[in-house]
Amino acid sequence: MAKKAILDLDIGVDDTMALMEALENPELDVIGVTTVFGNVPQATSERNALDLTEMLGHPEVKVYPGAKHNLVSEEVFEAPPAIWEIHGKNGLGEVVIPKSDRVAEDIEAADFLAQAIDEYGDDLTIIATGPLTNLALLEQKYPGKLKEAGNVTIMGGAVGVQGNVSPAAEANIGNDPEAAKIVLEESGAPITLVGLDVTMRVMLNRDKVNEWRKLGEIGEKLADEVNYYIDFYEKSTPGLGGCSLHDPLAVAVAANPELVTTVPLDVVVDTEGEMRGRTIGNVKTLRSSENPINVAMLVDAEKFEKQLNDDIQNIIKEAEAK
Amino acid sequence: MAKKAILDLDIGVDDTMALMEALENPELDVIGVTTVFGNVPQATSERNALDLTEMLGHPEVKVYPGAKHNLVSEEVFEAPPAIWEIHGKNGLGEVVIPKSDRVAEDIEAADFLAQAIDEYGDDLTIIATGPLTNLALLEQKYPGKLKEAGNVTIMGGAVGVQGNVSPAAEANIGNDPEAAKIVLEESGAPITLVGLDVTMRVMLNRDKVNEWRKLGEIGEKLADEVNYYIDFYEKSTPGLGGCSLHDPLAVAVAANPELVTTVPLDVVVDTEGEMRGRTIGNVKTLRSSENPINVAMLVDAEKFEKQLNDDIQNIIKEAEAK
Repeated sequence: MAKKAILDLDIGVDDTMALMEALENPELDVIGVTTVFGNVPQATSERNALDLTEMLGHPEVKVYPGAKHNLVSEEVFEAPPAIWEIHGKNGLGEVVIPKSDRVAEDIEAADFLAQAIDEYGDDLTIIATGPLTNLALLEQKYPGKLKEAGNVTIMGGAVGVQGNVSPAAEANIGNDPEAAKIVLEESGAPITLVGLDVTMRVMLNRDKVNEWRKLGEIGEKLADEVNYYIDFYEKSTPGLGGCSLHDPLAVAVAANPELVTTVPLDVVVDTEGEMRGRTIGNVKTLRSSENPINVAMLVDAEKFEKQLNDDIQNIIKEAEAK
Repeated sequence: MAKKAILDLDIGVDDTMALMEALENPELDVIGVTTVFGNVPQATSERNALDLTEMLGHPEVKVYPGAKHNLVSEEVFEAPPAIWEIHGKNGLGEVVIPKSDRVAEDIEAADFLAQAIDEYGDDLTIIATGPLTNLALLEQKYPGKLKEAGNVTIMGGAVGVQGNVSPAAEANIGNDPEAAKIVLEESGAPITLVGLDVTMRVMLNRDKVNEWRKLGEIGEKLADEVNYYIDFYEKSTPGLGGCSLHDPLAVAVAANPELVTTVPLDVVVDTEGEMRGRTIGNVKTLRSSENPINVAMLVDAEKFEKQLNDDIQNIIKEAEAK
């Protein structure tokens, strides 16, 4: 039976692909999308979640409002121009998609997560692809709740590799290290960490993306969106040959854990100095850890890339047919 | 056929065990020991190499003098008292062993390494368990030479875990980051990195060490030496239950690579600021790396621990019988 899944998204081009993978993967039953700031302001992530689920033929998926800024800030997060270059100011690579008439639910992300954990417990998978602020707010309001979920799979961190927003920090963790500390160090939840260690090993190139155009208007829009993202990668990481697949890999791993090889580590989050935002294994507890995080270190790239492209094409076809 | 092996050691309690494992492991034929500062001054490492090989029944192993300080220093390295607490001022946990009449060869480590690479090439394994200064000096004097060796297995670094001399740096790398940069980033050599990621996952406890006493006087001395090291670990890492096995694991992996699971990474060495001495994977080349380092991330601890204890007991028995 498919696992109940909540996606916590800052949508975002790769979040768009993550959403598509989650809606199409037979192992997952998406019961809601919670939204957070990160690649875009929270309000934009919410708007995109509503519009994308509708365009993709899944208007039954409810959307929940979440954190508008990190734990230590008091101002609503506005994405800086450097992030527009990656995801577009609208989070969809400046592609305009039809507006949904639906609105977000009147329940905050942390409350919805707590309700879902109470209802589904072990059968619930939470997949977080943005800053961990919503999960930290859940822990602050409902201490000990997160560890009652069946699994929490997080796109975040850079354990054995350099960060992408500083030599130490990956963007999601760097956007809210204090939240990451609560979730990764303190919650005791059963966590799989899908960080840059593996997400920079998987790739989608322009040729494959452009094949989606043959599928119709929705395929055209999504190809335009992902090509915008590839434009950025061609500048930032020329040797890669396409764009990395951060968030969709986290979804695929939540559904199919055998895609990655994991290393058990008590992950520590640095919050001070040059290393602020670093995620690193506690060297003192390698032998004695009782509840380590499963840190993904190797990935079956070929299998995942084929699966993702197939699933994206299939959901586009289904949406075009509706 | 056993692989020709050169050990580059800063002896050191765990170097002592590394030497025993190398002399006993049937996959390795030790053709020389080069010596370097680190756990002790270079002169002490040289003295210990001569005395230990003699005590262990292997006076045929020649010993070569190496670096007395790191690349950026001009003063002979003297170990600070904090290191005496780990290895003893004499590097042997203050245990006194018989003095050998032999002296070191009149050939510098870098020259001997170059000669051995010329002679054995692919059949030569170099196992370095101290600062990488001798290997860097080899590269400086004979550019491109190191990559002609069959394999270079290094105990050093902390890739997915915190360091042990700073939150970023492991001791061997921290003692000479500039040398590590030459070897790990620039040499192009076929390197396996056995860092704290795995060496803190393997352990030897007092009960096992005290069994060596039954084997005779040499067993008594080695048990006393390793117990001194365990004393330090009981203070520094109480949850471990014994001492870590850094250097002997590197030797065992050089002989039996299947003991570890490795991740291919272009390892970068930070030389500035808080992260000086950090070893970390290059995030930009995960997909495109052409000659990555094999970074050990998981280890079959049970198999290695049994093998090491068996090999140590066997070499003691053989030495006692001589």
